[in-house]
Amino acid sequence: MKKVIFFAVMILICDIASAQFRRRRQVEPLPEGYKPASTNTFISQYPAVNALTRQAMFRVSAPYAQIVQVDVGGKKYDMVKDEKGVWACTSDPLVVGFHYYSILIDSVAVMDRGSEAYFGSNWESSGIEIPEGPEGDYYRFNKNIPHGHIRAIDYWSEMNGMERPVNVYVPAEYEKQPGKKYPVLYLVHGWGEDENGWSIQGHMANIMDGLIADGKAVPMIVVMPSGDVKTNSDVRKASGDITEIYINDLIPFIDKTFRTYTDKEYRAMAGLSRGGFQTCLTVFNNMDKFAWMGTFSGFFIRGNDSIENAFNGVFKDAAAFNKGMNLLFISTGTEERTPKEAAEALKKQGINNIVYYESQGTAHEWLTWRRSLYEFAPRIFK
Amino acid sequence: MKKVIFFAVMILICDIASAQFRRRRQVEPLPEGYKPASTNTFISQYPAVNALTRQAMFRVSAPYAQIVQVDVGGKKYDMVKDEKGVWACTSDPLVVGFHYYSILIDSVAVMDRGSEAYFGSNWESSGIEIPEGPEGDYYRFNKNIPHGHIRAIDYWSEMNGMERPVNVYVPAEYEKQPGKKYPVLYLVHGWGEDENGWSIQGHMANIMDGLIADGKAVPMIVVMPSGDVKTNSDVRKASGDITEIYINDLIPFIDKTFRTYTDKEYRAMAGLSRGGFQTCLTVFNNMDKFAWMGTFSGFFIRGNDSIENAFNGVFKDAAAFNKGMNLLFISTGTEERTPKEAAEALKKQGINNIVYYESQGTAHEWLTWRRSLYEFAPRIFK
Repeated sequence: MKKVIFFAVMILICDIASAQFRRRRQVEPLPEGYKPASTNTFISQYPAVNALTRQAMFRVSAPYAQIVQVDVGGKKYDMVKDEKGVWACTSDPLVVGFHYYSILIDSVAVMDRGSEAYFGSNWESSGIEIPEGPEGDYYRFNKNIPHGHIRAIDYWSEMNGMERPVNVYVPAEYEKQPGKKYPVLYLVHGWGEDENGWSIQGHMANIMDGLIADGKAVPMIVVMPSGDVKTNSDVRKASGDITEIYINDLIPFIDKTFRTYTDKEYRAMAGLSRGGFQTCLTVFNNMDKFAWMGTFSGFFIRGNDSIENAFNGVFKDAAAFNKGMNLLFISTGTEERTPKEAAEALKKQGINNIVYYESQGTAHEWLTWRRSLYEFAPRIFK
Repeated sequence: MKKVIFFAVMILICDIASAQFRRRRQVEPLPEGYKPASTNTFISQYPAVNALTRQAMFRVSAPYAQIVQVDVGGKKYDMVKDEKGVWACTSDPLVVGFHYYSILIDSVAVMDRGSEAYFGSNWESSGIEIPEGPEGDYYRFNKNIPHGHIRAIDYWSEMNGMERPVNVYVPAEYEKQPGKKYPVLYLVHGWGEDENGWSIQGHMANIMDGLIADGKAVPMIVVMPSGDVKTNSDVRKASGDITEIYINDLIPFIDKTFRTYTDKEYRAMAGLSRGGFQTCLTVFNNMDKFAWMGTFSGFFIRGNDSIENAFNGVFKDAAAFNKGMNLLFISTGTEERTPKEAAEALKKQGINNIVYYESQGTAHEWLTWRRSLYEFAPRIFK
């Protein structure tokens, strides 16, 4: 019988890569207390995190580079090169949760190969998750409860002149209740992020699954759009205010595609940072369409606006605002510039459906926003 | 009235970034015939592609680097620095479709900031889509037909000791037919890719939407798992053959979670490159569970195996194989090492349900696999 010799390069590559991986891991155990970050690609040992000290260790192989640094949340650390051309450093203790970071190779900021990609600041950035014990239980995967699904969908935007991406979380019970309608929360990412921010960096599905399983939040659909006006190269000149896209293209698409209640009592909107500001712009100009709102690290009153004339005077008639809006949830980290003064001014103005929440010890970062969603979602549609 | 001055740093940043973006675009129009690649982040002008010549132009700002190159599909191009420290080059004509590429800064391969991230070769790589006219119609978004949804789900793997990611495409009609069950295609990515390969690089939703809308393929569920055994740092020692995870953890999860037919006549598996080889390993060892299979650039017979003893002798009894397997679809690009000899040997052995498909002019790349899916999906469950 003729032998069919078909030893594919592919398999060789796999075998070699696999062997190298095993070998590398055997010769270089991580320092005591350190584990590969959960945000790494699955074969990467580094960055490594120490759950006890909350420090991260970084490594980059760059034998010919002159200077290599790592930038974690705006703080730059100089890396030191060993005899093999591998640069290394250890960070200060970091806040629990997710942080964007980049590597600077001869002053060019690039993504670390060891990390998965996390879209932030308008590029695919490296990211690192600092773990901690009980804090994270509400945003980690729980195998003992039912799980909703996040659906990645493209919808057509007439205003934008192209398809736009949107992620839609549907609760675990959705398909088991084919006759039931659901309220909808529109949940927007921050500046330079995209429609995946809440599902990936934010772990929103784990948070919502847990709140719903515990009976703390009502089962709801959560719509996570892209908050940027992206156009393809054929229609780059086309534009459109993001609020208009939400109102005219996205909401009708969602109400047509999912089993939703369309009355304003069943529609909420929230967002983080710039997404919180977009929430204000969208909701305050469409008070007939939303009855609940949240702005996480994103309640800004521009320039010299007073409370009375901010946002086209939406707060001028406090009684009307109170009647039309069941909840104005304003949150912030304690380690960033807080909107406490504005929240108090709103209360003085007679806006009495405000919940002001401070995330202790966190800055303009994802732990603030995971906590904010965890506090906000149980308060809506009730 | 007290003025509430709250001029957030965030808004300043947005305004500045936006102004810079407008300014940059105004002063630097792209050369005639070039457009930003559809694979770019939405603010990136570069890489730019020329649909007519199928060339790509790359740019990298790296004033202090010594050597900067771009590597597109294994071919390295030297970049040339201008007086501002911006490096540039133009590629040779490229095949239509998707290509991974990287930038080398002083010999360190990194991702291009202008690109979205595409997981391949076990890292988050840059990618570039070369457009062409009619060729791509079947894999581009069509606003005039109904669209399925891709659901990003985590399922619990007992073998793996952690949750595992899987993307599941459900056809557009799925929710409008709450009493209907569907056949399931398991579709696996290649070496170093992940569960997003088919949905992002492969545009599988556009392909399936079109085939189903045209009545060429039957409505089906498509399950796209991760083909790597990924474990978290607490259980890194745990392992498990990927076939075992598919059979023991994934298929039961899918059949429990979706409205599926569970008989083998309604279950298919296909994959590209290493995923095609995983398909062979999985299906040939579980002939009671699958009745249709496809291996795209992934049909390898190891070492000195003959057709008769390959894959534990699954082809030895040709009649039994023919009875148990409705379709063995084998595809390849003409510009890669083809499995033509093996396919012919199989036919000589009496395996008569083979379809052998060659993608003209393409290599080990995504256009081969988009075409393969387009050819394969209409042939199953019929």
